[in-house]
Amino acid sequence: MLKKLINDYQYGFSLEQDFYTDPEIYKAEIENIFLKSWLFAGHASQIPNSGDFFLFEFDQESIIIVRTKDGAIKAHLNVCRHRGSHICLEKKGTAKAFTCPYHAWSYDLKGSLISARLMSDDFDKSDNGLHQAHVELIGGLIFISLAEKPLSLKAMRDDLGDVFDTFGFDNMKLAAQKSFPIAANWKLAVENYQECYHCAPSHQEFAKVHAMAASPAIFKKNKENYLDRADENIRTKESSYYFDLAKNGEEGYQYGRNPLLEGKKTGSFDGEGLAPFLGKITAYDGGASEFMVGPVNFFLIYNDHMLGYRFMPMSHGTCCCDVFWFVRDDAIEGKDYDVEKLTWLWDITTQADEQIIINNQKGVASHFYKPGKLSEMEHFEQNFLNWYLKTMR
Amino acid sequence: MLKKLINDYQYGFSLEQDFYTDPEIYKAEIENIFLKSWLFAGHASQIPNSGDFFLFEFDQESIIIVRTKDGAIKAHLNVCRHRGSHICLEKKGTAKAFTCPYHAWSYDLKGSLISARLMSDDFDKSDNGLHQAHVELIGGLIFISLAEKPLSLKAMRDDLGDVFDTFGFDNMKLAAQKSFPIAANWKLAVENYQECYHCAPSHQEFAKVHAMAASPAIFKKNKENYLDRADENIRTKESSYYFDLAKNGEEGYQYGRNPLLEGKKTGSFDGEGLAPFLGKITAYDGGASEFMVGPVNFFLIYNDHMLGYRFMPMSHGTCCCDVFWFVRDDAIEGKDYDVEKLTWLWDITTQADEQIIINNQKGVASHFYKPGKLSEMEHFEQNFLNWYLKTMR
Amino acid sequence: MLKKLINDYQYGFSLEQDFYTDPEIYKAEIENIFLKSWLFAGHASQIPNSGDFFLFEFDQESIIIVRTKDGAIKAHLNVCRHRGSHICLEKKGTAKAFTCPYHAWSYDLKGSLISARLMSDDFDKSDNGLHQAHVELIGGLIFISLAEKPLSLKAMRDDLGDVFDTFGFDNMKLAAQKSFPIAANWKLAVENYQECYHCAPSHQEFAKVHAMAASPAIFKKNKENYLDRADENIRTKESSYYFDLAKNGEEGYQYGRNPLLEGKKTGSFDGEGLAPFLGKITAYDGGASEFMVGPVNFFLIYNDHMLGYRFMPMSHGTCCCDVFWFVRDDAIEGKDYDVEKLTWLWDITTQADEQIIINNQKGVASHFYKPGKLSEMEHFEQNFLNWYLKTMR
Repeated sequence: MLKKLINDYQYGFSLEQDFYTDPEIYKAEIENIFLKSWLFAGHASQIPNSGDFFLFEFDQESIIIVRTKDGAIKAHLNVCRHRGSHICLEKKGTAKAFTCPYHAWSYDLKGSLISARLMSDDFDKSDNGLHQAHVELIGGLIFISLAEKPLSLKAMRDDLGDVFDTFGFDNMKLAAQKSFPIAANWKLAVENYQECYHCAPSHQEFAKVHAMAASPAIFKKNKENYLDRADENIRTKESSYYFDLAKNGEEGYQYGRNPLLEGKKTGSFDGEGLAPFLGKITAYDGGASEFMVGPVNFFLIYNDHMLGYRFMPMSHGTCCCDVFWFVRDDAIEGKDYDVEKLTWLWDITTQADEQIIINNQKGVASHFYKPGKLSEMEHFEQNFLNWYLKTMR
Repeated sequence: MLKKLINDYQYGFSLEQDFYTDPEIYKAEIENIFLKSWLFAGHASQIPNSGDFFLFEFDQESIIIVRTKDGAIKAHLNVCRHRGSHICLEKKGTAKAFTCPYHAWSYDLKGSLISARLMSDDFDKSDNGLHQAHVELIGGLIFISLAEKPLSLKAMRDDLGDVFDTFGFDNMKLAAQKSFPIAANWKLAVENYQECYHCAPSHQEFAKVHAMAASPAIFKKNKENYLDRADENIRTKESSYYFDLAKNGEEGYQYGRNPLLEGKKTGSFDGEGLAPFLGKITAYDGGASEFMVGPVNFFLIYNDHMLGYRFMPMSHGTCCCDVFWFVRDDAIEGKDYDVEKLTWLWDITTQADEQIIINNQKGVASHFYKPGKLSEMEHFEQNFLNWYLKTMR
Repeated sequence: MLKKLINDYQYGFSLEQDFYTDPEIYKAEIENIFLKSWLFAGHASQIPNSGDFFLFEFDQESIIIVRTKDGAIKAHLNVCRHRGSHICLEKKGTAKAFTCPYHAWSYDLKGSLISARLMSDDFDKSDNGLHQAHVELIGGLIFISLAEKPLSLKAMRDDLGDVFDTFGFDNMKLAAQKSFPIAANWKLAVENYQECYHCAPSHQEFAKVHAMAASPAIFKKNKENYLDRADENIRTKESSYYFDLAKNGEEGYQYGRNPLLEGKKTGSFDGEGLAPFLGKITAYDGGASEFMVGPVNFFLIYNDHMLGYRFMPMSHGTCCCDVFWFVRDDAIEGKDYDVEKLTWLWDITTQADEQIIINNQKGVASHFYKPGKLSEMEHFEQNFLNWYLKTMR
């Protein structure tokens, strides 16, 4: 059925209902997408010291992200190798080892089984370490892959190394985080993030700062104006190896820089600055960068702070949108930035999106829903759909 | 499996368990019954002015019932033709147009797409109006059909035109409405409404007014007495083209008139009158009429007010019973009728039925439930089962 | 799929994920296990007088356990033979007859239909009694079987008659009962009860009294010491016809006696006595007996009180653990025993297990869960798995 649905997809239109409602398609998505792609798990600044950990959870999975004694970051499946119990019950904390609360099998920070009481002589502890997820850091951003052989991030690193350097990806900290559980299939949430056709009617706060909410013609003019005045130290050249365009064996990614409205400095209530400049930035130049890697991880980089967006499936009809705010790591809360002001724009915007996405799910569940025509402003969503259908084939 | 269950049905007995518990049978019911039959959506008095609307919702469907500028009543699927969002989020209100909260596609009251920002030149707005349900009015009663080609109501209209005239169907208003969500399959609720075998043990308030709670022999005597004294201007002749007896291509319907107990005027606490006489009625004659059209819409017409009953499926294990009270449209609340007194009998009766139906669902879910023999007093329920099985074939 | 899973099971390891998450396997378990095995329903002391009843409920079933006029105990399915309603809505009480709240069909305490209003002449009441479950008493313990032809309990009775006599099974009363609903598949709860590998890390209160929490070597020494000093009137010889070892056509059972820690008398906060000696017991001898019959019914017999444990499935992902505390029937609450002290140990232990089992379910749901190796201390759990797989074959 899935094959037929994929083959019957009509380019330029939204997806058929079953993609949003069928539990079997959801299972295939977990296998083909979430167990294979790179997923943004969190930030190194959340676990500065040895033994610091937090849980990254989605669908039926719980993964322990932990700092080991040698300072590395590891990702362990939170599943005891004995009889499968969750071994770590706290959402975050500091541990010397992870001891299963059931039978006290104990794993060190690297996930090796160091103690299993009273097991028979033929039991080999070295065969019974926690299942590992692959981990890669992009600056302080922690990505994990649950694939046996993960997609390569090399092309992305070679291409965007200068961007990470400019924005100081190595020198950020997590300033705030909010989670928005949404009663809708995860794709409706990603589609929502991937298009700004809805920004003008739905997000007036956003539209007061960002040029992207405007029509394609006006946006084009804004972009041209911006490129004239852009800070030459900040990359404006686009990279679009995202989604269906990624090379075989490589994770898709994308980079671009877009204009704010004339006179606006950053994503705030009034367009005024919110925090010290990131990395090597020395001035507001009226732009903001988009960086995406993998299908559900999105970053919006202002000159003075960075947003992270992550959309994770919880069940076929529910997902969770997690929003992260980053500032430079030596910025002092209360002095250099105010958390409430920092988070205002994207908190209010995500609250609005949450309602939009729920109402979208209600409608696509109707017997009378039919795929509708996408607008030019939904071309990034079209890219996502292309990639999705190719990946699910 | 459904075919076998239908073929194996034993006349005179209740249905097999699967009919009440199987999600696949429920899906077939939505297709074969609820997307094909006429459904009572509400009353014209709820939307007196241009732009007034309310939502009629069941299963996964939401339908906007709206008064257009020319005074007509239309029914639009609440599903945007762009990406499927619900376009109308309020349960009732007044609108000049329906603008989708997602991307601001805007539809006029007739459901035509009047504005879709920034769509490409080859996009044809006239192809993208809201999906329409068919609408027919019986007096002020609004019926809709989601079928492509709806069943005909002509035979019913030709037969019962005098009844609608006598009771003034054109001159009623909705006086009150209550919804009773019930944790049971919708058929158990309809079956409950279709028989009065349970009235004597379960509904003593009803049994104090209505002869129908009595045994067949006593009811027969009451009916004969009533027919002797009945108001000759009110039709007593029965029409039974309901359920399995309807002609091909026509919606089933039924009309009959039944006695109240000696000395009772209407369905009230003490049998005393509740409101001004309906239509052309000039006196209490000790009777009440039943009118049904379509499988889940029932009307009980006293001389001074009318009840509407509607049973809609919400999921295979839940349904909603909506009760409507109508009075003549020039009656003044607080002066001519008291809402609390008006609604007392059927509010208390429906509350009791809600519990009965839930306990029925619990029992039919047992491995040890077997269809049981119906009594003579359940012959209307048998009619319903006959029609149901024929329709699902 | 089930056959393959059973055939692929690797001895010495925990079960594959599907056994804990698949609704189809759950349905097969209801058919093959719960509708066939003997189930502990409750205790005769709960219904001392004619008409006293309580409900025993699991999955979709509700069973009325009732004392009839001749003093016998009967078990009736709580499903009306007319249209299937639950006939008894109270969880416990006293009745002269059971009258269905729907249409007033009335059944006597033996389950015979004694009244069905207005049914046709060809309706035979004697064909329409309530469906009966088989009942057997072991002392005051009420067991029921929903099988058409129940498994025999004769071998168990012949073998253990002296045990029931020693502990005075005929002369106990229910002193307390608590229910623990658990968000996990029922097998995880039974497996938890079947092994004490987790007792040392998870149940320090239990481990302060019971030798079973210790390592096999230490437990062996404790047991040898105990057998030297054991009361010769209390049976210490083990019987293990439990689970896969039961003869064809017979219900499995098991009896054994295990040591408490040196100086401990019974299962209490400090190991001190809690109630008058059971049956013919005249002293604390530092032991406690285990008695099991059927797959989900477990009894722990101290010299001064008895525990009953029952694990019933509610859905494929939820179960209920019911705990019963028994004392000798002439003991007086507040004088001879204190309910709070009596229930303390197993209340706190079961609360801990509830959390353990829920966390186990979360982990086995992961894509990365794999069956793990069992320890020597989990050999009773292995017995349970052997029996389960054989029974499901």
